[in-house]
Amino acid sequence: MTDTVVSSANSELIIGFDQPFRIIGERINPTGRKLLSAEMAAGDFSRVEADTLAQVAAGAHMLDVNAGIPLADEPAILAETIKLVQSLTDVPLSIDSSIVEALEAGLSVYQGKALVNSVTGEEERLEVVLPLIKKYGAAVVAISNDETGISEDPDVRFEVARKIVERAEDHGISRADVVVDPLVMPVGALNQAGAAAFRLIRRLREELKVNTTCGASNISFGLPARHGLNAAFLSMAIGAGMTSAILNPLHSEEVAGVMGADVLMGRDPECRRWISKFREPAVEGSAADVWRGGRERRRRRA
Amino acid sequence: MTDTVVSSANSELIIGFDQPFRIIGERINPTGRKLLSAEMAAGDFSRVEADTLAQVAAGAHMLDVNAGIPLADEPAILAETIKLVQSLTDVPLSIDSSIVEALEAGLSVYQGKALVNSVTGEEERLEVVLPLIKKYGAAVVAISNDETGISEDPDVRFEVARKIVERAEDHGISRADVVVDPLVMPVGALNQAGAAAFRLIRRLREELKVNTTCGASNISFGLPARHGLNAAFLSMAIGAGMTSAILNPLHSEEVAGVMGADVLMGRDPECRRWISKFREPAVEGSAADVWRGGRERRRRRA
Repeated sequence: MTDTVVSSANSELIIGFDQPFRIIGERINPTGRKLLSAEMAAGDFSRVEADTLAQVAAGAHMLDVNAGIPLADEPAILAETIKLVQSLTDVPLSIDSSIVEALEAGLSVYQGKALVNSVTGEEERLEVVLPLIKKYGAAVVAISNDETGISEDPDVRFEVARKIVERAEDHGISRADVVVDPLVMPVGALNQAGAAAFRLIRRLREELKVNTTCGASNISFGLPARHGLNAAFLSMAIGAGMTSAILNPLHSEEVAGVMGADVLMGRDPECRRWISKFREPAVEGSAADVWRGGRERRRRRA
Repeated sequence: MTDTVVSSANSELIIGFDQPFRIIGERINPTGRKLLSAEMAAGDFSRVEADTLAQVAAGAHMLDVNAGIPLADEPAILAETIKLVQSLTDVPLSIDSSIVEALEAGLSVYQGKALVNSVTGEEERLEVVLPLIKKYGAAVVAISNDETGISEDPDVRFEVARKIVERAEDHGISRADVVVDPLVMPVGALNQAGAAAFRLIRRLREELKVNTTCGASNISFGLPARHGLNAAFLSMAIGAGMTSAILNPLHSEEVAGVMGADVLMGRDPECRRWISKFREPAVEGSAADVWRGGRERRRRRA
């Protein structure tokens, strides 16, 4: 039972083995979004504002915030974005950058305990990012690759994750504050990518006893009907023990895959969250029918 | 590695640990279908014909055939339905009745090796159904309840399944010819129904080493957005080791849950079946792009 506690100024969130699965909204990220990128570089944060509100309304438990814009002052923009997002919502944030100065700028303005995304198993990264995590009392996403790249063998990736967890402990960071990303590869390129991810997620939970997260949509890269495949992946990853993921909470198929898996793992008491999310507009006491009699509801939409 | 081999006159199908998941089409069943029920009782099989062709076209690997019409001559109607369905398609059938005379009538006209649905752990049923399975060289679905009813405890249901498998062996029926139904309960009524099913499916595969099947839609009884929940259940059950299920192959969410799980278990080489099922209409070599470069396809539909 490992609980990773993150927080904002006024609100705490647990990522944990017995908690509902945690959705980390991925939208505040200029990578591949030209318009957002140009706007953020020019100091226009209206789209960030809209993305914040829409993702929280859709059920995101946390938001990932990335300001990776080529040639821009990423540390300053990331800090400004974080301040804005924290003024709009009370959900905890994941501070996302590959630039250490940007991570530090974000951490220095963040109110609460952030999740830092991310550190890899590369020596150089470990020795600059981990002291920052310790200094600010944050939690961190550990990505299971190192100097040798990303192994196709899930057992090699497990050993990289173990190394990061042990090194974090050397720095005085508890393993509860390390959330491991097993690195999900596109199954269209690597046929065993799904099976490898599930095996690794299970080992990370049972042997290393850490929470896990991933960028879910990577699994379906290059394939048709991506939302359906992402949904199947998320449900199965939750069945294997994954406790959070970075995804777009506005995609209803993925959200159904996640919330359905919570129901099926017995983590949605009386299916209240499922019913509240998906019930059709009430018609003459029909919602009550579901509760009282368990009778089959007539379908009112195709 | 347990293979359950079923067949029609000209075609063989394996339900097995390393096979793609097997979809058993559920539509040829008058239960709850008033019109079909009245038509079948009156000797009009046009809807059976349409249901046969539509389910096979949608990708069903087998079809379940049930003729349970109150006050009708079920053995005669079941036999007639089976003959008709076998004249239309070469997929193997599951002969579905709670009346032993109907099972025997169906088996006596069936061409190939059928799957009989079903036998329970009740003494009386075991001693009439198992001799029939042996006599016709069929395979059988074993439902894990007995005289004491359906236990909520998956470990009690496991013991019932073990008893049926052992009794079948006493009758000279190999355990490869027993496909266990773990009995999926509605999660809206029983919060741990999903978790219990996954635990039982895993034990049935790893300890009893049998193939498994279930009526998948039962899980979502009484809840909204049933297709999404069924899809999550199917994906997770396949992750836990389930090898077949009775479902409606015309429901695209469920089929995506099944086929996505096959992809993610590494049982769809080069994702060929997924791509063939879900690719959008070809536009200027775009399908080839997916193969050659793994480049992201532009989405041409919303």
